[in-house]
Amino acid sequence: MKKYIERNKERFFDELFSLLRIPSVSSLEQHKPDMQKCAGRLVGLLLEAGADEAAVYPTKGHPVVFGQKTVDPSAPTVLVYGHYDVQPVDPIELWKSDPFEPEIRDGAIYARGANDDKGQLFMHIKAFEFMVREGGLKHNVKFILEGEEEIGSPSLAEWASENKERLAADIILVSDTTMISESVPSINCGMRGLSYVEVKVTGPNKDLHSGHYGGAVANPINVLCDMISSLIDKDGHITVKGFYDDVVELSAEDRAKLSRAPFDMEEYKEFLDIREVKGEAGYTTLERTGIRPCLDVNGIWGGYTGEGAKTVLPSVAHAKISMRLVPNQDSATITRLFTEHFKAIAPDYVKVEVTPHHGGDGFLIPISSPAYKAAEKAMTEVYGMEPVPSRGGGSIPILADLQRILGIDPLLMGFGLERDTIHSPNESYLLKQLFAGMEAIALFYRYY
Amino acid sequence: MKKYIERNKERFFDELFSLLRIPSVSSLEQHKPDMQKCAGRLVGLLLEAGADEAAVYPTKGHPVVFGQKTVDPSAPTVLVYGHYDVQPVDPIELWKSDPFEPEIRDGAIYARGANDDKGQLFMHIKAFEFMVREGGLKHNVKFILEGEEEIGSPSLAEWASENKERLAADIILVSDTTMISESVPSINCGMRGLSYVEVKVTGPNKDLHSGHYGGAVANPINVLCDMISSLIDKDGHITVKGFYDDVVELSAEDRAKLSRAPFDMEEYKEFLDIREVKGEAGYTTLERTGIRPCLDVNGIWGGYTGEGAKTVLPSVAHAKISMRLVPNQDSATITRLFTEHFKAIAPDYVKVEVTPHHGGDGFLIPISSPAYKAAEKAMTEVYGMEPVPSRGGGSIPILADLQRILGIDPLLMGFGLERDTIHSPNESYLLKQLFAGMEAIALFYRYY
Repeated sequence: MKKYIERNKERFFDELFSLLRIPSVSSLEQHKPDMQKCAGRLVGLLLEAGADEAAVYPTKGHPVVFGQKTVDPSAPTVLVYGHYDVQPVDPIELWKSDPFEPEIRDGAIYARGANDDKGQLFMHIKAFEFMVREGGLKHNVKFILEGEEEIGSPSLAEWASENKERLAADIILVSDTTMISESVPSINCGMRGLSYVEVKVTGPNKDLHSGHYGGAVANPINVLCDMISSLIDKDGHITVKGFYDDVVELSAEDRAKLSRAPFDMEEYKEFLDIREVKGEAGYTTLERTGIRPCLDVNGIWGGYTGEGAKTVLPSVAHAKISMRLVPNQDSATITRLFTEHFKAIAPDYVKVEVTPHHGGDGFLIPISSPAYKAAEKAMTEVYGMEPVPSRGGGSIPILADLQRILGIDPLLMGFGLERDTIHSPNESYLLKQLFAGMEAIALFYRYY
Repeated sequence: MKKYIERNKERFFDELFSLLRIPSVSSLEQHKPDMQKCAGRLVGLLLEAGADEAAVYPTKGHPVVFGQKTVDPSAPTVLVYGHYDVQPVDPIELWKSDPFEPEIRDGAIYARGANDDKGQLFMHIKAFEFMVREGGLKHNVKFILEGEEEIGSPSLAEWASENKERLAADIILVSDTTMISESVPSINCGMRGLSYVEVKVTGPNKDLHSGHYGGAVANPINVLCDMISSLIDKDGHITVKGFYDDVVELSAEDRAKLSRAPFDMEEYKEFLDIREVKGEAGYTTLERTGIRPCLDVNGIWGGYTGEGAKTVLPSVAHAKISMRLVPNQDSATITRLFTEHFKAIAPDYVKVEVTPHHGGDGFLIPISSPAYKAAEKAMTEVYGMEPVPSRGGGSIPILADLQRILGIDPLLMGFGLERDTIHSPNESYLLKQLFAGMEAIALFYRYY
């Protein structure tokens, strides 16, 4: 595959850049036409790469792309999952180059989606192309590429239920996660689930002059801060009643195994420019993101946020709050518990609304499976080191759904790095990782 | 004056509306030309009303308007203070009509500035006009109208220091406050001061994926909420170290006198649509806004605030926080104490910046003065009831400065009502109050 990449590099860039230039932000209504456009472009790339068929399928949300090549009906089938939608780009002013005009700087591609997930799914299309043209592909390969991962995949589970036959496979292969570091390859063997809610706290029925009412009427921003502050205690525990009831505590042995992953605290703090880390008492940083649930405010707003000063006592305050879940917490249950708790702690002088956004369950993947072993061998060959089994802190809720609906385990070979700052300004993807990923995936087909 | 109003009503509306149509928002750079325009319009109105001279004077910020009429150098001089700048209009979507296209509905003018303070200063220009033309004006009258009250009057104190002679007078007459209710006239005999700061809490040096880092890295929004929550304890006391050191506690007698002001808790709660009020333990609602300091978050923002969900662990969170002060708290001292306190309580895992906005001291006005007595008599005649001496919760910091610089007491005859929702969408001013104010001011000239 190395030589194939060398020969086709420029074409690869052209093709990937043509995807990155489409602003397929799934959460923003204005980008709806871009979703169609991006899905159409993927169909083209799949067909050019060697798929027998590929098409755009409507869903009740953004469309899915499905394509496949059947080599031998009795051979094992690999189902590649990826998503072509991306996160919003704000704060736009922090980008050093246009998020939708990819640029190569210092050996990396900079663009929204460069890694998550256009760059990573592109590796699969190119590894597939190589296998078809020069690698002697022995597997049947299917692609399911959705446009709603960043908004919680509200449509794919239904589509998958209605298309079980079409999606039938032996393994779901996914590149949408990170490795531990540039020099330490890893394979994700578990991911956290997610509950995501939006809360609204209403005080008086109109914005008030803070001089006339300040001190006598509850300020919904202050109250929201009080309520949020009470959600995590001084030991870093989440105070939502019943929150930990279903959490599976890992055995000492499993914790020891996970702690094999190298981790340099000083490097970590330096990368983030923080003096101290913060999290749940009694757990390491990797455990805090890998095997423990957490709660974060993802956004907050209320009152006057423009330049200068306005002496307003606002009527409402809002926050977006998400909880990362671990096996075997149920996303719907946690969302319900949060909603009940948040309403229960609301003081008499405000009104509280809680609106659920998307969510999904976490999942675990067996390390002993043939697919895991094949991926392990492939990555060892590419990186010269056996990959570490890790537990990803992020969530791909749809994978737990697909696992349940289709009865197929997912395998997460992710090639992203922390430095890629996905979801943030200046998202990037190292060319080294892009090409190493293609090689590892091609080798996976050899060893699987 | 009643008949004069009747005869000139339409012209009055035209003139006032011409002021209200100018979007003189002092806090927004884009409205700089409007400040000049509004100042120019006021010069025209003062000259037409009968001023000997009126002109726009530059300051290091927005210009001031000064005009005067000298009747008899040995007669008492009234200095009218007002401000022609207005608050921003957001949230614009809650306005029922264009904030800068005044509309009369249900007996009130709706526009930004209808009351605060274009409507109220207009009463003074028209009462002056009446006195000049038909009332037999016996006083010298001066007008000082500034364009920076809503941003804390950063330039007027300096201008006043350099123009002490020009501003020499016996009383500063101001209409920029409210009466207790439509049927209960009141005269403000004290106002709160103000400290206003903006805080910025920085966690990691970039926005992070909340799945990869959530639980292990301090989220600056959560930390900001913790810090804000800690600023007020469960009894409603502000926890900033030294905050209450200079607060003058009122005597039981003074508290009893202030409690004469009628107050209907049920009406108050109904007006605001709240189930409960909230404030400092041991004080009534009127005391909480009149004689006690308070702390409010006027704005908060951070992370993703657009539609849908984004799983970001943001790098920074911001808030605008103001404190209303009572005599004899010093605004500069409180700003310093807050800054020290807020930095002291910042945990190791974040960086904190505090930037002061404007501020000003509170003040008290003697009830026994001839000017107060004249205002009392004038309002009694107009409303058929003796006005209640009240303590305003708002702040007009510049008045404390002018009192100090010029050695003249201010007198606050305000005709606004709570229902006017100044600083909020759909600001209005009752025509009844507009005209009653003109009458009362004209009568003040008779009795002073």
